[in-house]
Amino acid sequence: MNAVILETSQVDGATARLDARQSKHVTDVLKKSVGDQILAGVVDGPIGLCGIVAVDEDIVRIAAPAGPIPPRPSIDLILALPRPKVMKRLWMPLASLGVGRILVIGAEKVEPFYFDSHAVAPDTYRPRLLEGLEQARDTRLPEVVVIKAFDWFARKHLPALEASSVRLLAHPGATTSVRDAIRARPQSPRIVLAIGPEGGWSARELDVFGQAGFLSVGMRDRALRTDTAVVALLALAYEARAETSIASPPQAASGVV
Amino acid sequence: MNAVILETSQVDGATARLDARQSKHVTDVLKKSVGDQILAGVVDGPIGLCGIVAVDEDIVRIAAPAGPIPPRPSIDLILALPRPKVMKRLWMPLASLGVGRILVIGAEKVEPFYFDSHAVAPDTYRPRLLEGLEQARDTRLPEVVVIKAFDWFARKHLPALEASSVRLLAHPGATTSVRDAIRARPQSPRIVLAIGPEGGWSARELDVFGQAGFLSVGMRDRALRTDTAVVALLALAYEARAETSIASPPQAASGVV
Repeated sequence: MNAVILETSQVDGATARLDARQSKHVTDVLKKSVGDQILAGVVDGPIGLCGIVAVDEDIVRIAAPAGPIPPRPSIDLILALPRPKVMKRLWMPLASLGVGRILVIGAEKVEPFYFDSHAVAPDTYRPRLLEGLEQARDTRLPEVVVIKAFDWFARKHLPALEASSVRLLAHPGATTSVRDAIRARPQSPRIVLAIGPEGGWSARELDVFGQAGFLSVGMRDRALRTDTAVVALLALAYEARAETSIASPPQAASGVV
Repeated sequence: MNAVILETSQVDGATARLDARQSKHVTDVLKKSVGDQILAGVVDGPIGLCGIVAVDEDIVRIAAPAGPIPPRPSIDLILALPRPKVMKRLWMPLASLGVGRILVIGAEKVEPFYFDSHAVAPDTYRPRLLEGLEQARDTRLPEVVVIKAFDWFARKHLPALEASSVRLLAHPGATTSVRDAIRARPQSPRIVLAIGPEGGWSARELDVFGQAGFLSVGMRDRALRTDTAVVALLALAYEARAETSIASPPQAASGVV
């Protein structure tokens, strides 16, 4: 934990109350006490150094976080739901890498029963996303939308994507690199990256994405498990974005105190 | 499992014997039987399609793998040992991304007791590395060297690195990108990438790496857990390498059947 990230319900006017896990980390691991400062933020709100004002019955109370609100991450993800064990493991890295919105969807090669698993329940993903934000010192909680039916996603969600976004579909064997595709559209404010099931998208699904303006992008040709592929592709996309923003307006830059 | 990877002890002349886990996967998941073919390889040996010659008492016997031997991955890793739970989780993605050699080392900000954990025991890492090879359809098992004392690593292992390798040290805040550092040395046959503990290298350690010719490279400035950072950095390095090899001799290209 590199920062404490609080739910808005933990903030009470000018002060905020850490939960038991956070309090224990601050007092036992960081060895902080009244008068010391810690880095703390509020979900989708400001983050900054906050003084500890009280420690009562092992619960730490701090001055409410103030300071800049981190920018919303510029990449959104469309992800064919992987095996529940893999999905569960992916929430924390997703939040630590930073994603604006995660659409978890069904596809022909996704077992429908994966959607009955705890891996896509808010009780599972919310604490893991918060843990990722605490790691990355960010407050921007990814918005999660779970859509079991691909056709519903295609009819309802695909047409609602921001018109100006760069749309990339990770596809084995595609010859355009993530970097080249992003650099070709430096003025686009957002990137939407679609990542398929390990068995790949079906021909019909590829067609739906193609019609919605998605460009197939490839990576070094190696079969990776979804969690590894997602981290690798997000790293490539953010790096290309960072290169691009050197030549773009400064507000495109990211980074938190 | 996208390929069955066999230990050399499983090969017996012209045929090879799958273990119980591999046999079960072939018969129950892939639904293959005598006469069908599966992709199979031998650790550090050939990989190719092999006919199933027998299924006896739930154990599958195939024709011994023949075919090309995949090239050794061109990146080696020096990794300050992360928390055992994180290290354990990292072996499989490391093998699936492909690494020639992994030096797991101690550092000032690595707890010495991490080295007593099962996470760095061959019984833990070997099956996980094999699983990563089975995912990536590769046979090149990363060589693992575990060195608890940083000073011993500095005296014994650093001077033994291949003279012509590009040496990169991942360091928060460094302004040279992984891509630029690799592209500046397109003729180097190998890359050595050093990744520090979450708390960073000490000033003395940085000095040792600097003296050994390591160049600090940065990534988008976000605090990531070691497993996420390693996957992200390897993806960036392999992508830069792939771009570079377009202009280099063809033997630099990788990729398995």
